[in-house]
Amino acid sequence: MKDHIHHLAIPTTNVAESVTWYTTHTQCTVEYQDETWALLGYENIQLALVIPGQHPPHLAIVRDNAEQFGPLVTHRDGTRSIYVKDNAGNQLEIMAADSLTPA
Amino acid sequence: MKDHIHHLAIPTTNVAESVTWYTTHTQCTVEYQDETWALLGYENIQLALVIPGQHPPHLAIVRDNAEQFGPLVTHRDGTRSIYVKDNAGNQLEIMAADSLTPA
Repeated sequence: MKDHIHHLAIPTTNVAESVTWYTTHTQCTVEYQDETWALLGYENIQLALVIPGQHPPHLAIVRDNAEQFGPLVTHRDGTRSIYVKDNAGNQLEIMAADSLTPA
Repeated sequence: MKDHIHHLAIPTTNVAESVTWYTTHTQCTVEYQDETWALLGYENIQLALVIPGQHPPHLAIVRDNAEQFGPLVTHRDGTRSIYVKDNAGNQLEIMAADSLTPA
């Protein structure tokens, strides 16, 4: 049983321009978009485009035991997670599996 | 029909330490490992841990029309791809769909 990587957030300085770039050059759906971030849907994963400072670039991994990483924060969409860093300093979001609705 | 994101490569300064971190804290398989990079298998995507300078951190997207991005390079594993940057400077690898063996 391998973990699921829920989404990946990469930086941009202009969300609208990045949404245009990705929808022009690749095949994806725009799941959400505002001025501070957007969420694109790919076949196997979601890609977030974020303005650093507003939202940290990161990789989100779903775990059954997310709370073992520390106290979870509940987000507006109902998901619960904690941000941690790996040994090399990469930012990870550990998401509680039971806080996700089935895709 | 949405594109598939084949893998994601994030930086580390010590591949062995990062493999230990990810296999200890998350559930994944070690598909490949040497001193310059490693490839971890998750449920829906592969995660590469790379030493920048040896291998660039990037996001790899599978496209039918990869050659429209420019001339493709054939790698030792038989895959063909080109590295491009998105509008914000993020490094992407565009992989030719017909160069990939079914998972």
